[in-house]
Amino acid sequence: MEQVSGWALLFTALVIPAAGRYTPDWSSLDSRPLPSWFDEAKFGVFLHWGVFSVPSFGSEWFWWHWEAEGQEQYQKFMQKNYPPSFTYADFAPQFTAEFFDPESWAELFEAAGVRYVVLTTKHHEGFTNWKTPVSWNWNSVDTGPHRDLVDDLGQAVRKRNLRYGLYHSLLEWFHPLYLMDKKNGFKTQNFVFGKTMPELYDLVLRYKPDIIWSDGDWEAPDTYWNSTYFLSWLYNDSPVKDTVVVNDRWCKDCSCRHGGFFNCADKFQPGTLPDHKWEMCTSIDTWSWGYRRNMQTSQLMDESRIISDLVHTVSLGGNYLLNVGPTKDGMIAPIFQERLRAVGKWLSINGEAIYSSKPWRVQKENDTDSVWYTCSNTSVYAIFLQWPEDNVLKLPSPIPASNINVTMLGISGTLKWEPYADKGLSIALPYVPSGALPMEAAWTIRLEGVK
Amino acid sequence: MEQVSGWALLFTALVIPAAGRYTPDWSSLDSRPLPSWFDEAKFGVFLHWGVFSVPSFGSEWFWWHWEAEGQEQYQKFMQKNYPPSFTYADFAPQFTAEFFDPESWAELFEAAGVRYVVLTTKHHEGFTNWKTPVSWNWNSVDTGPHRDLVDDLGQAVRKRNLRYGLYHSLLEWFHPLYLMDKKNGFKTQNFVFGKTMPELYDLVLRYKPDIIWSDGDWEAPDTYWNSTYFLSWLYNDSPVKDTVVVNDRWCKDCSCRHGGFFNCADKFQPGTLPDHKWEMCTSIDTWSWGYRRNMQTSQLMDESRIISDLVHTVSLGGNYLLNVGPTKDGMIAPIFQERLRAVGKWLSINGEAIYSSKPWRVQKENDTDSVWYTCSNTSVYAIFLQWPEDNVLKLPSPIPASNINVTMLGISGTLKWEPYADKGLSIALPYVPSGALPMEAAWTIRLEGVK
Amino acid sequence: MEQVSGWALLFTALVIPAAGRYTPDWSSLDSRPLPSWFDEAKFGVFLHWGVFSVPSFGSEWFWWHWEAEGQEQYQKFMQKNYPPSFTYADFAPQFTAEFFDPESWAELFEAAGVRYVVLTTKHHEGFTNWKTPVSWNWNSVDTGPHRDLVDDLGQAVRKRNLRYGLYHSLLEWFHPLYLMDKKNGFKTQNFVFGKTMPELYDLVLRYKPDIIWSDGDWEAPDTYWNSTYFLSWLYNDSPVKDTVVVNDRWCKDCSCRHGGFFNCADKFQPGTLPDHKWEMCTSIDTWSWGYRRNMQTSQLMDESRIISDLVHTVSLGGNYLLNVGPTKDGMIAPIFQERLRAVGKWLSINGEAIYSSKPWRVQKENDTDSVWYTCSNTSVYAIFLQWPEDNVLKLPSPIPASNINVTMLGISGTLKWEPYADKGLSIALPYVPSGALPMEAAWTIRLEGVK
Amino acid sequence: MEQVSGWALLFTALVIPAAGRYTPDWSSLDSRPLPSWFDEAKFGVFLHWGVFSVPSFGSEWFWWHWEAEGQEQYQKFMQKNYPPSFTYADFAPQFTAEFFDPESWAELFEAAGVRYVVLTTKHHEGFTNWKTPVSWNWNSVDTGPHRDLVDDLGQAVRKRNLRYGLYHSLLEWFHPLYLMDKKNGFKTQNFVFGKTMPELYDLVLRYKPDIIWSDGDWEAPDTYWNSTYFLSWLYNDSPVKDTVVVNDRWCKDCSCRHGGFFNCADKFQPGTLPDHKWEMCTSIDTWSWGYRRNMQTSQLMDESRIISDLVHTVSLGGNYLLNVGPTKDGMIAPIFQERLRAVGKWLSINGEAIYSSKPWRVQKENDTDSVWYTCSNTSVYAIFLQWPEDNVLKLPSPIPASNINVTMLGISGTLKWEPYADKGLSIALPYVPSGALPMEAAWTIRLEGVK
Repeated sequence: MEQVSGWALLFTALVIPAAGRYTPDWSSLDSRPLPSWFDEAKFGVFLHWGVFSVPSFGSEWFWWHWEAEGQEQYQKFMQKNYPPSFTYADFAPQFTAEFFDPESWAELFEAAGVRYVVLTTKHHEGFTNWKTPVSWNWNSVDTGPHRDLVDDLGQAVRKRNLRYGLYHSLLEWFHPLYLMDKKNGFKTQNFVFGKTMPELYDLVLRYKPDIIWSDGDWEAPDTYWNSTYFLSWLYNDSPVKDTVVVNDRWCKDCSCRHGGFFNCADKFQPGTLPDHKWEMCTSIDTWSWGYRRNMQTSQLMDESRIISDLVHTVSLGGNYLLNVGPTKDGMIAPIFQERLRAVGKWLSINGEAIYSSKPWRVQKENDTDSVWYTCSNTSVYAIFLQWPEDNVLKLPSPIPASNINVTMLGISGTLKWEPYADKGLSIALPYVPSGALPMEAAWTIRLEGVK
Repeated sequence: MEQVSGWALLFTALVIPAAGRYTPDWSSLDSRPLPSWFDEAKFGVFLHWGVFSVPSFGSEWFWWHWEAEGQEQYQKFMQKNYPPSFTYADFAPQFTAEFFDPESWAELFEAAGVRYVVLTTKHHEGFTNWKTPVSWNWNSVDTGPHRDLVDDLGQAVRKRNLRYGLYHSLLEWFHPLYLMDKKNGFKTQNFVFGKTMPELYDLVLRYKPDIIWSDGDWEAPDTYWNSTYFLSWLYNDSPVKDTVVVNDRWCKDCSCRHGGFFNCADKFQPGTLPDHKWEMCTSIDTWSWGYRRNMQTSQLMDESRIISDLVHTVSLGGNYLLNVGPTKDGMIAPIFQERLRAVGKWLSINGEAIYSSKPWRVQKENDTDSVWYTCSNTSVYAIFLQWPEDNVLKLPSPIPASNINVTMLGISGTLKWEPYADKGLSIALPYVPSGALPMEAAWTIRLEGVK
Repeated sequence: MEQVSGWALLFTALVIPAAGRYTPDWSSLDSRPLPSWFDEAKFGVFLHWGVFSVPSFGSEWFWWHWEAEGQEQYQKFMQKNYPPSFTYADFAPQFTAEFFDPESWAELFEAAGVRYVVLTTKHHEGFTNWKTPVSWNWNSVDTGPHRDLVDDLGQAVRKRNLRYGLYHSLLEWFHPLYLMDKKNGFKTQNFVFGKTMPELYDLVLRYKPDIIWSDGDWEAPDTYWNSTYFLSWLYNDSPVKDTVVVNDRWCKDCSCRHGGFFNCADKFQPGTLPDHKWEMCTSIDTWSWGYRRNMQTSQLMDESRIISDLVHTVSLGGNYLLNVGPTKDGMIAPIFQERLRAVGKWLSINGEAIYSSKPWRVQKENDTDSVWYTCSNTSVYAIFLQWPEDNVLKLPSPIPASNINVTMLGISGTLKWEPYADKGLSIALPYVPSGALPMEAAWTIRLEGVK
Repeated sequence: MEQVSGWALLFTALVIPAAGRYTPDWSSLDSRPLPSWFDEAKFGVFLHWGVFSVPSFGSEWFWWHWEAEGQEQYQKFMQKNYPPSFTYADFAPQFTAEFFDPESWAELFEAAGVRYVVLTTKHHEGFTNWKTPVSWNWNSVDTGPHRDLVDDLGQAVRKRNLRYGLYHSLLEWFHPLYLMDKKNGFKTQNFVFGKTMPELYDLVLRYKPDIIWSDGDWEAPDTYWNSTYFLSWLYNDSPVKDTVVVNDRWCKDCSCRHGGFFNCADKFQPGTLPDHKWEMCTSIDTWSWGYRRNMQTSQLMDESRIISDLVHTVSLGGNYLLNVGPTKDGMIAPIFQERLRAVGKWLSINGEAIYSSKPWRVQKENDTDSVWYTCSNTSVYAIFLQWPEDNVLKLPSPIPASNINVTMLGISGTLKWEPYADKGLSIALPYVPSGALPMEAAWTIRLEGVK
């Protein structure tokens, strides 16, 4: 039922010009205000899950590195462990997900303090984590998990009032229709109308996502991808037109220029305050977005690094999207659980300075290099990453008003301070008993009554 | 290269009305004369090979019986031998074909005396035995055999001057686009234009088949299947327009009425001489067209039965298409080899009465019930299936001319005869030493100078 | 229960000298008369079934050819189809036997006219087809079929009054204890007392076999194998002491010299009448005893050859043990079914000349080279393999008495004859209508009243 | 070569009474002084690795819980994920160990500060991690990893001067010989002499272990296990007689009474100072010793808990053997890596108070309940687990001499102190800048010149 009507709507949508406010061009689409929930959310978790989770070796680009590039370590891995005729498609039945418990994932994400979750519904390999009519026998229902992963996770996530975003790759490395279009210099659109568009409409109509996190756009122009038409439908007529947020990966040269919020490059972090809402996506496993069975702790971001990144990002007006790769059997590895819960513990004390905050007029103290600011309507928050040896925190930038109030998040009582240099404050830090605060990564001073 | 141009041609073909002789309607299409090679060939081998060859249980309809009908024996088979979540798609990697040697298949077919070979390029399961862009990861190159089975067999077969036919199922039981169209009462054609048509054009352009043996037509009208448009292109503009032969399964109610030669029902055999070229397709394994690992000899046609069927069919103007199901590892089971070679041995003596023959004015002696006639320009052939106890063969129908010549194929010398009743002949059969003729299934008397 | 007592008995047996008639030396053991059922049985079926049925490639010596000899075709087969680290032991879980139906096997063997069945309980690979305590996790109950194949078949076979024999290999190519003993010049017997002897006692006590068909004896002397001690127990004290029959493969240089009946070499057939009861073992697949997935009909014995071999063997006083290799899924391939049933059909007419027969004073007519004799108390049987062109069978050897009776098995009525040369007979063969006799391989003339 | 002689030695050893000092009775064996390296080592890592690492579900007792007890969660797990006939033995080929890098394991263990490594060479399942002749095809060389895991790890570990211990289970839950002996009330010893003893001798002779960590002793008396004979050989004549250490699991009622050091129960920790050298073995995963794919961080010991346990244990004279379960693909999960490295970091500062230390006259301050003592020849070490809120550590037990020296490990300079109550010290703790010491689990005060 739903499928049929969705499909019908698709073809309708493609043929009949949309009647709404936005027109299918970037100047119109870029003018849409970003729904406010996104900027308020600040922190999300990113999940890369697919058939690449089966070899679970190298990275989620396994297939490409192995077969398109012929990288030696991938070829050796295959030669050592599989029969010569084994293909990537043959991995799919081993994507079992037998331990996948969406409720416990959602509980973990809530404990981590994230406000949104973004799942790969389809990566460049083309395997879809839901059963879409255009990816028969190459999806998580027909083989492998035999479940609608997109739906199962979405339901659990929303039960806990987390927003739900769907990652979707426009291109597919090896899809024969895509390769055909590519050979034709992207003058034909067999792949777009036979695969990409039906998928995107299907995703929106079935799962009503809060984010469409597009990727795989870099080889072709928007005229090929049909992006502006899709976005105008999404903004004008889709069931999520008022709430949905999208990123900036909708065509070659779109990134950092068009769409909703900007991701720019993976792991991109600006040096100064950007004038457009942005999001930094990064991965706990610094070598990969997908799970690697043979990862070593030295290749992982530790808790301090993650919190430091989060603080840096939020100070500069960004959102922080932190990735973990689930295993093929449906687990989030304990090391990732531990990292996520540690951030959650930190946010349970310091979240006031993060969620719904705004960048302050100064983002960072240049002298100390480890103090970052955010602000709310009533307060300025100085988050410092290193505890001063003399227990005195010097903040040159805030200008204290007459009766200001200086406190430390998580510690009761006010702190003593005195003017510092021309205009700043010098604050006497409290004695913090071992174990009183969650961890030693960063602490927050709340300043009420400063400019 | 070829793919791209083929594809382009497809869309062209669909849009621009064909300029040729035949118009896309049955009255025009049915008027096309059947290329003569087909009637001359008389005997072909049929091969059902696909993912169903992996469970190799029940029949090639395994998937349907198991999942659509829920037949108990199939459910028990799955429960006993596979994990609960195992799906039909998971069988594909086990379709290994490691022993597939097209040359030795072709040698066997030649020895069997067939003049054409028909391979399932895609059965109702949708798995294609070649790599077509519209069946990604559900074809024999991306998984399973990792070979283009259609091409590999075709090359070997043609090297021996056998004609090559391609079986192709229009419908696919479980293809989501097909199910969608079906739900829409076949008013939409997403499946036809996204799957069936591209496949058929691809098959024709790549492999230049001598036969397109269509199937799976019975649920929808020709307007849905686009059959008449495809056939008009095939007859007018395709590279095989002068040689290709098709059957009659192109739409609901097409069978036995439209197309090229008529198959009518599976294993259909008319009682009297039809007025349209027809073909009887049947299977050595009387229970299945696909290979069954647990077949018993009692379920197989024996050599006498096959030769008797062949004779019966050819006498009535038909072709005989005899099926064997190869194994998942690429073998034709020895029992099938033996049957095929036995027919070949019989044909090496009696082929003169079969190949290029025509039905005679009488097809069968009603009295004996086991004498069948064929004829050539110069001779009438009486093929008898039982050796008379008194060594005298009575043929009531032929009218002997003055100086007729009566011989037995495979035996030198002429036979004595005398008139029988009003007009027939009574022939003294020769002594045939044990082992002199291939087997005891049927013998041929050649009559020169009878009417 | 049974296991424990059996085991206890074993150690008792080894320690306490047997009190019975036979002493553990060949002169005593060889003096035992062969139980009469064996000579009367004449025809048995041999089954080679084990882990080698999984690769089902080359022969049942797969492991040896691959790993001990490193033969190229085996190495290539493994390289092409398996990961590099795959070992022979890894095949075992795929020995599934899901279609194994002992009743239908037994029905087939009965229809084939065999009087005994010999199954490989353990071939040189060491995998046991029953669960013996000394082959843990390398037997058909712990892995693979998860069934006691020896027991399951035995029950079905005996229900139909067929005798049941157990093939057992003394040596195991790769058993570490065997290799250790071998390195020690067979001066140690760790393998014999830890593996072989417990197995043999276990087999006898559990399954009470009618035959122990020993093999794998050729590398070591009887003092290593403990053969004479085992046989003296078997003959004196075992539950089958009165009925069991053994062959001659009990030590290096035993073959053709010691034990029960003689097999001598595989497929051995003497030229003249031996003075010791013997058995010819041979295989329908002339290339292998185990099933080969890629066998071709040209590599198989046809029905005529089998019947000819059987006749030849029985004329010379032998038994004929005809081998088929079941598949890993538990089937006897239809081609083997067909061969076996054809022999059964022939025996249903001609069995009188085979079962319980004795060699006659002349075994074979030298002139014709295709007439073999057997006899019973009252008759002499002349079995001829080629039908004479003139329908007259000339038998130089029998000396006709005054009122002799000449008939043909399967045909009613007596045959006319006249003296031939000095002493023989010249017999007028009857007209045999096509299909009246099972097949054209051999026919039997019964002579009553000749010398 | 080695195998043969080892084996020969075995039988010799069993027959000829040992000529050395120790007699095969507990009073003699218990009198052997424990080689000193063991008490000095203090900290080891324990590795549970075997076929149970394949299902990696529940615990290393998977097989028992599933098949002997029929626990519901195990049965459901099997029903959901495997075909009905799947057996435990069928898991073995999936024990792949493709990422097993002994060097990186050894590097990790060194970084963790352990002084010895104990690997399960064979757990109760009977699968051996080396190729012993008595466990053919049920060992890590013949199937699964296809490697001698015991040897590979041993070489890497010893290269870094870590001691190497071998865990070995006397019993095997399902070994048929063991079950037979058990049925016989352990009056027969087929299993012991056919399996256990050959294994133990083989292990000692091949790998020259520093520890034999015996287990699985609880069902049978030492007379059954032959323990005292084995130990007398080990102590008198084995190549490791001067260095090897054993534990106390050598028979029913042996534990905590006989052998070398005492383990008593798993995770046993005495309340007061024992008078016999002991070792506490425990596991980071509090639910299992083998790897569990679905473990949650809440089920794991955190770093503070581990260090606290270590300190507690060493204070009471014990060694601390901390377990991790490697994965079936040969990895030590990052969460375990992180725990181990954290302990190593702590030991890099505080190891002086642990390694080669002795229990002091007082083990623990009762008042504070979180101060534990150890001592060396020259110093007493007070290890405190909670930092006092007032930065003053009160130690009632030490009696200060005239010129004592008080320092904190990892911090330069001496600390101020003053007498506390009758005899103790009250010490002013230094300011420790955030990040200066590895973590907040425990700190050590070194007292020189106290009694």
